Amino acid sequence: MQDGKPGNQTGESMKNKRNIRLILAFDGTEYHGWQIQNDSKTLQGLLSEAIARITGEKAGITGSGRTDAGTHARGLAANFHTGSRIAPRQLVRALNSLLPRDVRVLSARQVPHAFHARRDAVSKVYRYQMYLGPILPPHLMREYFHYPIPVDIPKMETAARLFIGEHDFTSYAKKNAISSSATRRIFRCELKKLGRRLLLTVEGNGFLHHMVRNMAGTLLEVGRGTISLTDFQNLFSKRDRTQAGFTAPAHGLVLLKVKY
Amino acid sequence: MQDGKPGNQTGESMKNKRNIRLILAFDGTEYHGWQIQNDSKTLQGLLSEAIARITGEKAGITGSGRTDAGTHARGLAANFHTGSRIAPRQLVRALNSLLPRDVRVLSARQVPHAFHARRDAVSKVYRYQMYLGPILPPHLMREYFHYPIPVDIPKMETAARLFIGEHDFTSYAKKNAISSSATRRIFRCELKKLGRRLLLTVEGNGFLHHMVRNMAGTLLEVGRGTISLTDFQNLFSKRDRTQAGFTAPAHGLVLLKVKY
Repeated sequence: MQDGKPGNQTGESMKNKRNIRLILAFDGTEYHGWQIQNDSKTLQGLLSEAIARITGEKAGITGSGRTDAGTHARGLAANFHTGSRIAPRQLVRALNSLLPRDVRVLSARQVPHAFHARRDAVSKVYRYQMYLGPILPPHLMREYFHYPIPVDIPKMETAARLFIGEHDFTSYAKKNAISSSATRRIFRCELKKLGRRLLLTVEGNGFLHHMVRNMAGTLLEVGRGTISLTDFQNLFSKRDRTQAGFTAPAHGLVLLKVKY
Repeated sequence: MQDGKPGNQTGESMKNKRNIRLILAFDGTEYHGWQIQNDSKTLQGLLSEAIARITGEKAGITGSGRTDAGTHARGLAANFHTGSRIAPRQLVRALNSLLPRDVRVLSARQVPHAFHARRDAVSKVYRYQMYLGPILPPHLMREYFHYPIPVDIPKMETAARLFIGEHDFTSYAKKNAISSSATRRIFRCELKKLGRRLLLTVEGNGFLHHMVRNMAGTLLEVGRGTISLTDFQNLFSKRDRTQAGFTAPAHGLVLLKVKY
């Protein structure tokens, strides 16, 4: 992950700067994810520009992690260093006045100089949102994955609980996206059915690329019966992406919170 | 209201036709309301075209009432007469395959020949959706009116209850939009606060143009203190639009259900 390194600034100049943490919410429909790219609308790009317009500095902004194109956030954390003396509350107002309505800065506060939005994250909470009815209501279309195939919910609940603990998530990671260890600890993994909505909430100490989307797709296949509970249990040791379920689409994924 | 009259068809040809009732849901952001207009994207226009493509007939479709540009629906009812023998369930599928994703046909069923979606409606249930926090979260921006000014909720609840019963709603109707009587009966009017969301649910036997939006705007002014409870109580007898509150914006309004 390249984002975050406040690159070419010397240690001396950094010390005179404040470190500001932002909490962000966005509807990711129109964005190519967090990470800055040439010629694509990204959240990091948008935020960097807005900060530069306010502070007059070209600051690198560090996110709590990458996010896939089309995914959403209710509470992504990010930080940047600035020499500007603008008060955090004013900064929130100034940023929101420059940003489009589908991206909001919910809060800003000064944090210790060493704080790093990605490295210091203790856990992240994601929600994957599914709609099981035959017809997807339009007010849910931007944030719910429509899955109109009958599923066995108690079976899915059993499988969801088996994600809790420390496991090798190679079978759930995008191929060739694992740099070192694929071991992650899941603190919480629960399914909640609200009418025809099915919400998967997962909290863990870290997530591999596509991990939550692959967990959701695999649970749906367990519910549908195309993956048995026994096969599901063996997926951790198989360490084979092709044995797990499909990658559920990006638009159902919401980053709820990053804990420090 | 012009919509609905299955105009130039003779009584004889009508008798051989089935009468189909549709329940519709839509995100109204992109539409100029229900009623067909030249050169504007409307829901009636869109539905009429889709029905014509399936049945081969140019059928007039009658809605349960007009809706303002930008308002939404979870359960608008409509009916049309057709000589086509297509099964209702197949019709739902065929229509949804032609319609954009922000408009869905939730159900279709054959109803008695005389059924008329507007004239036979016994009551309608609307919800006006407000968000009171300082920053509007992006996932609510399409369907919530952002009102970041402090309001007295118990006072608003008191006022909301006073809408229940039969009243002259001239003060709450768009000027010059009242054709005959402005008397309407409200069966239910309640405010519910969920976190920072404030939901106004209103059920009545009929609604004048802009009536729910004006009721919401007036309640907010009561909550803010710019209209006293006493002045509020006198609004029915005043019969003067200028004495009531502002017209809350269209995008906060959702038609939940039409009862027959």
